[in-house]
Amino acid sequence: MALSSLFTVDEYGHRCREILPRGLFDVLFGTHGDPWFQSHTNNLDGFTRLHLRPRVLAGVEERSLSTTVLGQKIEIPVMIAPAGSLQRCHPEGELAATRAAGRMGTILALSTASSFSVEEVAEAATGPLWFQLYFFKDRELNKILIRRAEAAGYKAIMLTVDNVTERTWEREYRADFTLTGAPASILQRPTTGLKQTRSDPGSMYKTFATIDRPNLPSSENFHDVLEKNLQWSDVDWLRDQTSLPIVIKGIQTAEDAALCVEHGVDGLVVSNHGGHTVNGLKGTIDTLPEVTEAVGGQLEIYLDGGVRRGTDVLKALALGARAVFIGRPTFWGLTLGGEEGVFSILEILKNELFIEAGRCGVKDLAAVSRSLVVYEGLESLAARY
Amino acid sequence: MALSSLFTVDEYGHRCREILPRGLFDVLFGTHGDPWFQSHTNNLDGFTRLHLRPRVLAGVEERSLSTTVLGQKIEIPVMIAPAGSLQRCHPEGELAATRAAGRMGTILALSTASSFSVEEVAEAATGPLWFQLYFFKDRELNKILIRRAEAAGYKAIMLTVDNVTERTWEREYRADFTLTGAPASILQRPTTGLKQTRSDPGSMYKTFATIDRPNLPSSENFHDVLEKNLQWSDVDWLRDQTSLPIVIKGIQTAEDAALCVEHGVDGLVVSNHGGHTVNGLKGTIDTLPEVTEAVGGQLEIYLDGGVRRGTDVLKALALGARAVFIGRPTFWGLTLGGEEGVFSILEILKNELFIEAGRCGVKDLAAVSRSLVVYEGLESLAARY
Amino acid sequence: MALSSLFTVDEYGHRCREILPRGLFDVLFGTHGDPWFQSHTNNLDGFTRLHLRPRVLAGVEERSLSTTVLGQKIEIPVMIAPAGSLQRCHPEGELAATRAAGRMGTILALSTASSFSVEEVAEAATGPLWFQLYFFKDRELNKILIRRAEAAGYKAIMLTVDNVTERTWEREYRADFTLTGAPASILQRPTTGLKQTRSDPGSMYKTFATIDRPNLPSSENFHDVLEKNLQWSDVDWLRDQTSLPIVIKGIQTAEDAALCVEHGVDGLVVSNHGGHTVNGLKGTIDTLPEVTEAVGGQLEIYLDGGVRRGTDVLKALALGARAVFIGRPTFWGLTLGGEEGVFSILEILKNELFIEAGRCGVKDLAAVSRSLVVYEGLESLAARY
Amino acid sequence: MALSSLFTVDEYGHRCREILPRGLFDVLFGTHGDPWFQSHTNNLDGFTRLHLRPRVLAGVEERSLSTTVLGQKIEIPVMIAPAGSLQRCHPEGELAATRAAGRMGTILALSTASSFSVEEVAEAATGPLWFQLYFFKDRELNKILIRRAEAAGYKAIMLTVDNVTERTWEREYRADFTLTGAPASILQRPTTGLKQTRSDPGSMYKTFATIDRPNLPSSENFHDVLEKNLQWSDVDWLRDQTSLPIVIKGIQTAEDAALCVEHGVDGLVVSNHGGHTVNGLKGTIDTLPEVTEAVGGQLEIYLDGGVRRGTDVLKALALGARAVFIGRPTFWGLTLGGEEGVFSILEILKNELFIEAGRCGVKDLAAVSRSLVVYEGLESLAARY
Repeated sequence: MALSSLFTVDEYGHRCREILPRGLFDVLFGTHGDPWFQSHTNNLDGFTRLHLRPRVLAGVEERSLSTTVLGQKIEIPVMIAPAGSLQRCHPEGELAATRAAGRMGTILALSTASSFSVEEVAEAATGPLWFQLYFFKDRELNKILIRRAEAAGYKAIMLTVDNVTERTWEREYRADFTLTGAPASILQRPTTGLKQTRSDPGSMYKTFATIDRPNLPSSENFHDVLEKNLQWSDVDWLRDQTSLPIVIKGIQTAEDAALCVEHGVDGLVVSNHGGHTVNGLKGTIDTLPEVTEAVGGQLEIYLDGGVRRGTDVLKALALGARAVFIGRPTFWGLTLGGEEGVFSILEILKNELFIEAGRCGVKDLAAVSRSLVVYEGLESLAARY
Repeated sequence: MALSSLFTVDEYGHRCREILPRGLFDVLFGTHGDPWFQSHTNNLDGFTRLHLRPRVLAGVEERSLSTTVLGQKIEIPVMIAPAGSLQRCHPEGELAATRAAGRMGTILALSTASSFSVEEVAEAATGPLWFQLYFFKDRELNKILIRRAEAAGYKAIMLTVDNVTERTWEREYRADFTLTGAPASILQRPTTGLKQTRSDPGSMYKTFATIDRPNLPSSENFHDVLEKNLQWSDVDWLRDQTSLPIVIKGIQTAEDAALCVEHGVDGLVVSNHGGHTVNGLKGTIDTLPEVTEAVGGQLEIYLDGGVRRGTDVLKALALGARAVFIGRPTFWGLTLGGEEGVFSILEILKNELFIEAGRCGVKDLAAVSRSLVVYEGLESLAARY
Repeated sequence: MALSSLFTVDEYGHRCREILPRGLFDVLFGTHGDPWFQSHTNNLDGFTRLHLRPRVLAGVEERSLSTTVLGQKIEIPVMIAPAGSLQRCHPEGELAATRAAGRMGTILALSTASSFSVEEVAEAATGPLWFQLYFFKDRELNKILIRRAEAAGYKAIMLTVDNVTERTWEREYRADFTLTGAPASILQRPTTGLKQTRSDPGSMYKTFATIDRPNLPSSENFHDVLEKNLQWSDVDWLRDQTSLPIVIKGIQTAEDAALCVEHGVDGLVVSNHGGHTVNGLKGTIDTLPEVTEAVGGQLEIYLDGGVRRGTDVLKALALGARAVFIGRPTFWGLTLGGEEGVFSILEILKNELFIEAGRCGVKDLAAVSRSLVVYEGLESLAARY
Repeated sequence: MALSSLFTVDEYGHRCREILPRGLFDVLFGTHGDPWFQSHTNNLDGFTRLHLRPRVLAGVEERSLSTTVLGQKIEIPVMIAPAGSLQRCHPEGELAATRAAGRMGTILALSTASSFSVEEVAEAATGPLWFQLYFFKDRELNKILIRRAEAAGYKAIMLTVDNVTERTWEREYRADFTLTGAPASILQRPTTGLKQTRSDPGSMYKTFATIDRPNLPSSENFHDVLEKNLQWSDVDWLRDQTSLPIVIKGIQTAEDAALCVEHGVDGLVVSNHGGHTVNGLKGTIDTLPEVTEAVGGQLEIYLDGGVRRGTDVLKALALGARAVFIGRPTFWGLTLGGEEGVFSILEILKNELFIEAGRCGVKDLAAVSRSLVVYEGLESLAARY
């Protein structure tokens, strides 16, 4: 795989579709025949319907792409979203992705469902990390995970709130493919040490490797041991467990954004889980304006879902996001090149951002304002009425 | 036919298109080349244009999918719409569909044009039934049907008001196929006892089998003996004939919804007869809001037309429906598996509803509110103006 | 050609596309590759964007499809638009079309560019006729034509105002086909008497056959001898020449509709000449509302452009048209069956209208009101704002 | 290449796609697979969404297509946009295009990146010229270019402001093709004298041929030596350097249009560089209304981007442009016929304009007003709300 022949993030995705087994690709990323894909399409279409309004003669030779998130400086407003078991696409999984993030000077948010332990990833890291928490019925387990993340130096706890009740297995059934099989063999890559792991049911998620609790989460029982009754009082409970900043991932309405403010969280991610949780969801970039308005600057807003170009980042920033996360592209980069592939994805976005900021008259990404974008067709309404 | 390989309602439809004779499929369900299909497409597109706004952290481990319709509890807000002669798709027709509805704990509305008599279906039923009435010029016949439905324990009279004047036979002519032929032979299924019935013209509809009246309805003269001059005074007349609740099926405007309230009916179905009556009709999910507003909670509102996913049910409930009906899917389930097929359709919808309710933060389907949905693209308008 | 196998007007068009030489079809009716076709598509799309709102329980067994135009009763609100040289599609051309109109009890508007003389057509007619006038620089010629139309009993003068300046020959050049060739031979039909006519340049239009004037219009010089400077004072001049009602054909704006009222004409046709005059024109059904509002009931409004179904007629009536004209369908009917073909087209529309009126709760076509239609998607706006 | 078989500007483009090497075509004009093409598509779609509202009976036999730009009369409101190195498509490049413009009585704006020197082009010219200036870090070089343009009789300085910061080479990389190769050989045309030029790196742009400065711009270093920090004070500086009118090319917002007024420039071009600078840009015809409103008649507005038909010109004029520029069509004309090809392009547009003006009731192109156009679908909104 010559990464140098791939010029855009989408080309990484297209290449992965060519080389990955169809079942694995479909389960991980979805396809057009998949009804759930409609939510993902809403994410992508939302960006297309937004048009840019570039300013000129703004003296933008020097441009800054950096910003801060929760007080931590990052070099580009693009972070790596938590994603379950990155080893499914590359033996080095989260270790590789973490190294790529560190090289770029940005943050990776480690999934609870990681292929490597919290400590292993922290050890590999050259930059800051956040820890994404799936909230388990077993409160003690949640505490243990938080303690370990704190001890390992993670900078924030990101609570995922949108994938906690029963799920459908429709995609898996249709593809006749589940993610508990050994991806290494599928990918025809060296799999030393990996196959053994796979043959040990329940140990797919290394996050729980050294914890001594009954009924620990595994890829088989994961959704069963989650706290399906998750509610705002659990956020308050979480607030009491740690002094780390708390970020809520999975906000899709102004109403819940207002509750985030009320419950004193530090940030929220406008996300529909890449469209994987329910079909027919509103696209995240279309949700962003109502969230921005509801939040009124009282906490930081991030977005994931459909970010593929530097211009997508600009559009999200224009509508109120402080930074964005990428999900599918991390898998694509890992699949095609491990750490190098993920870094290359980040570099493409950085280069695009630098060029596009210049061509849009933007000196400082952190200062991008609402007037940078206009909704397709609305100029017509404005012109006549 | 392994039903276990079909995961969604739409897949039942696709499979039926593969195995049914083209003429039968086209006449029953319509195709894209068929101008009437445009109304059906408007039904489907209406759902796609509605996007969901899921709430999080709502403590929804326990969820209720049940509701009541006209005071009768049903386990899911999905009922089986009346449909002419289900035997066209399976020898056990209405008997099988009724058993499936009973197993699921929901209601089947039996068509006047049933392949089995009111009593036969009631005998097979394990749950409540409604009786759909086509209003005949022969008032005495209407009375007889109502009396028999009452005697057999039907819980409501559903008056169809939208398919009573002259109809076009365009679809039948184009497909070179009419529905009076013997479906059993077409479907290559055992047809004992069925062929005989078919060779007896006029006896396709068993509803009228034991009635002693001149000029009884048959598949040949059905539209000729209907009361083409049907009007609101007939609704009043019907009101005087029975103490059962009366539901009007086929409302497409706020104006007629208001007249339903005025004439004291107990429920109405927003329906365009699956798009089969006229081309270019407004989609039912798009009609629902004006009807809900006009009714102001004074009677129960149901909807049919294009319901294929649990999310479609959620969207209809969000816009004011108390429950929905399925039409084409009943035929698909029957075709592919008789009672088991229909039950499987209902089970798919139940499972989807349970999962999607959880993922949308809905504890109680009956309490779903308007804010669960937003029209595609309108967030843009809201954001700017 | 078995007409009985064609069930809709569109099927006549599709069949013509199959059997007519490509060049002839393209020049007469346009194709998707043709930029001018965009205006025609706007006509068609306008109808699709309008959805019907049917009323129920309206007691519509008896329905009237008839209306009056300029005081003259017609059995259906569909008339035959003036169209140049119908002999291009059938040897009996206007004679056949006139007979078909008469049989149906509606009006044909005879084109100035007719293949038969004003008197020949009047003689063949069994119903009322209108005379469409192209206004020539030679005022005397206009007078002669008006006098002859009056003498032959035509009931109105319809002045075409939208095709009078220079035209493009782009379509003809691209198709490498002009309409002065002998259509009869192309259609492989008996052409006795016809070929001779064709070999006589200038005599394609029989309208001028017996007139003794210099520089008479022919298919070769037609656009050259038109009054390219046509203006409202010419309408006033026309008003002075005849006591027949005057109808202006080719109105596309509220502004010109208001001028029609001001200049005392009796009717106007919202028309963009079937999309043939300029590309990118607004669809006529989309223009109708502004014209209806501007006219305020002070003259009669008709519409042509894209009428193919009974529902299209209903939609035009709902938005303020008193009746509609068909253009392309006349050619299609003639091509496939002469008088019988045109009558069949009218009969299809009549049958559709009768059925659809019933199913929309319409007793009297002349009383169809605005509330019968709603624009696609606008229900969403109404619901939220 | 028989130009006479091409009837529209788009057909020139289609033909070029057939005969040009794919890489050259893609780099120059973009393709649908190219993300940057989305901005170009937005330009084209904007025109399609605008519908014409033609007036009738306006007495338009005599029509004027001429207008003035910066006081200079031109015969049609279509000028030739500056474009880099036209020799890439024809050995006579800018000389041929200039002669074509002169024959038509319109203006060519010569690019800084010309294949011929300012003086060579001026010598070939039979009509007025403008000089497009890319602003270099080397102020002295800018002065020299301005002096030479003034001396050679150019009538205005057009400052390009939207392509000055770093650019992406994504299109070039993907096509595996850069524009520094020898187009003549590619085009299989006589290349006497041309190949030699090409073998001399840095001398592609003749504009700088005789200038004695260090680090002169070439096709290799062009973007490096531009003033990337371009700002409004540079416009003021430019204003001080010359008494020629100044036109700013690349305005995409009302805000920057207002700044153009404030800084006393004489004209502006609403342009997104043919969509080549950033993906996801607003279409220029959609930007025009806000610019027209912001300018309030205080300077002249021109537009480029997607102009392919006479009706596009009418639409731009209706929304406030005084004239338009064509970009891609110049290359197409050159490729297919040198001077003759470009003249033919201009002649097509002139003929279309003359015909369409007549058919839209326009006597004087310079007086076209806003009411000539309406946005697709907005009539619906107007009709109901």
